[in-house]
Amino acid sequence: MDFEIFYGLNGVHFDKSKIASIDGLNGELIYRGYDIRELAIDATFEEVVYLLWYAELPKKAELEKFTADLRSRYKIPEGVIKVLRELPKDTHPMHAIRTGISALASFDKQADDLEMDNIHRIGSKLVAQFPAIVAAFYRIREGKEIIEPDETLSIAANFLYMFNGEKPSQAATHVMDTALILHAEHGSNASAFVCRATASSLTDVYSAVTAAMASLKGKLHGGANTAVMKALEEISSVAGVEDYVLKTLSMPGGRVMGFGHRVYKVLDPRAVILKKVSHNLAEESGDSKWFEMSVEMERVMDLEMDKKGKQIKPNVDFYSASVYRMLGFPGDMYTPIFAVARISGWMAHLYEQYANNRLMRPRLVYEGQRGLKFKAVSER
Amino acid sequence: MDFEIFYGLNGVHFDKSKIASIDGLNGELIYRGYDIRELAIDATFEEVVYLLWYAELPKKAELEKFTADLRSRYKIPEGVIKVLRELPKDTHPMHAIRTGISALASFDKQADDLEMDNIHRIGSKLVAQFPAIVAAFYRIREGKEIIEPDETLSIAANFLYMFNGEKPSQAATHVMDTALILHAEHGSNASAFVCRATASSLTDVYSAVTAAMASLKGKLHGGANTAVMKALEEISSVAGVEDYVLKTLSMPGGRVMGFGHRVYKVLDPRAVILKKVSHNLAEESGDSKWFEMSVEMERVMDLEMDKKGKQIKPNVDFYSASVYRMLGFPGDMYTPIFAVARISGWMAHLYEQYANNRLMRPRLVYEGQRGLKFKAVSER
Repeated sequence: MDFEIFYGLNGVHFDKSKIASIDGLNGELIYRGYDIRELAIDATFEEVVYLLWYAELPKKAELEKFTADLRSRYKIPEGVIKVLRELPKDTHPMHAIRTGISALASFDKQADDLEMDNIHRIGSKLVAQFPAIVAAFYRIREGKEIIEPDETLSIAANFLYMFNGEKPSQAATHVMDTALILHAEHGSNASAFVCRATASSLTDVYSAVTAAMASLKGKLHGGANTAVMKALEEISSVAGVEDYVLKTLSMPGGRVMGFGHRVYKVLDPRAVILKKVSHNLAEESGDSKWFEMSVEMERVMDLEMDKKGKQIKPNVDFYSASVYRMLGFPGDMYTPIFAVARISGWMAHLYEQYANNRLMRPRLVYEGQRGLKFKAVSER
Repeated sequence: MDFEIFYGLNGVHFDKSKIASIDGLNGELIYRGYDIRELAIDATFEEVVYLLWYAELPKKAELEKFTADLRSRYKIPEGVIKVLRELPKDTHPMHAIRTGISALASFDKQADDLEMDNIHRIGSKLVAQFPAIVAAFYRIREGKEIIEPDETLSIAANFLYMFNGEKPSQAATHVMDTALILHAEHGSNASAFVCRATASSLTDVYSAVTAAMASLKGKLHGGANTAVMKALEEISSVAGVEDYVLKTLSMPGGRVMGFGHRVYKVLDPRAVILKKVSHNLAEESGDSKWFEMSVEMERVMDLEMDKKGKQIKPNVDFYSASVYRMLGFPGDMYTPIFAVARISGWMAHLYEQYANNRLMRPRLVYEGQRGLKFKAVSER
């Protein structure tokens, strides 16, 4: 029998969803009907999480209740911190944080209950605790004291506080909110898909989210922002950018990280916003090097892609690299920060998946041997 | 636009594979061309792992080298044991073991290297160390001393030894080999698919395998064997089986665990073999209760399904429950034992996936709102 093979499941639709819509031809991303360009500037991360989960923006009292509930869950179990302390300090942060998330399950007596109320409870807990796990691992690694969460702070402000040990400025908090909102959700991206596929065996929420973390780490997905920063650090000056790009493109299979996207054929709207944010941060901080290098890289890529008749534009990872750098984050923590945002989208997908589940079991076309007869090892 | 939606990705082919072929209409399963019915009785687990990975049965010298290499990797890092000790003893074993596997990555300096040689090195390590992690968690939980692996023993024998603290009989080792072989591989089952989908972002092997563990835990997948044993323990006598089955089937959405399979329309060939193994064990041990209850359950289900004009037959999980019980394993350790076998299949799939990768990014059909305008919270 001949079967059509959908490599990468490209173009296959596996379910309906009411969470996010991506218009790759027009460079548009909407969450529950709202354009990301409005949300990124005017909303807080908490409002967007509420929107993603409950399909409407919260009224004042709803937002207060939701926020208070999240803040009451900021603190992670001591046992998870102990697990993080057992790991070698030079480990990839995504290994450590994935392990921490996985361990979290063992400290939740109702980890395996798939009633929808309980799934929502775990969702709130995870959104509240991802920042604490990321910050805890970072500070353990750096030999610094772990900072207890501050329940008077928003998720964005509290994350910056637990990470750096200093209360952040309003401007820094606003940038963090914008970055979290822009990374919160993106349809059936690789990790959200893995999250849903994992949940489809009716495994628990922690398992599904651990699997999503495992997927996010890859360089074709959340690992890209770390790769962008690594490239910028290697190049280290605006003057070196052109050489780097030309050299990379000339190599077999050479790819400049942070450019191109499976869905967006024009500019990724998230990149447009982050470019502005990066520009503002560069002006305010006086440290414009990373922004200028990024602009130069975009310019050279535009020229080179034009020559090839291609449209390969910066994606969300590209300008988030310089933004995170100016917020003071080390490059290898960018993917964990992506996770701090994306847990909100993963949960939105899990609410849909568990509410109307079907085991995901696609097929492979067998092209191997048939009809072989076993022989004992002495006769081979 | 109207799109065809493939719920559960049912009937979608996502790649070619040379590993296993399942003929659901004829109840046939082959690994690399060999019928599972021959392999299960005549081969060892090590031979089957070699076959799954290298597409042919090993010659004597090859098998010796492969076995020696696996045995040299039996011992797990002390740090992973420390991580397991930090987890509450009453946690679901799959949470603990998933966390242990995830932590293993941090103790491997080359965890993130995706060169094929290194992927194979990690594969051998994981097949060698899954039994030790499962046994370590079990013995920590039971307050027993951890048993160091014995490099003179096969994987099956060493697993029984580390688990029970006693060198197993040849008969028990043979049953364990058979069980491991039957659970080693099953095409694009849910966890193998999640494993490949996770790897497709070019994340590392440990991440992909952790995700597979997350999937396996679900009751629609590897969690089913634990559910079967739980049901048998609740029923507790042959006389109680019929009532239980009738009652379960009469409930809305009621499902008798261990029956039915997405792919097999006739009897699962693995169930046929395990039924014989279960029968033998019952006769040898004199403890025939679990086997007799299983046979009775199959009889009642056959009758009831006949009435409905359906063919819903025992699957691999059904008779593995009584087999594991007679080998002395507690019910909640059955899914981890499944993992001890299936890691070999997951690795075979990872070798294929990394060798010819395409990011898996299927689509969702957006059916949510559009064109909403953001209002500040004070105006909502």
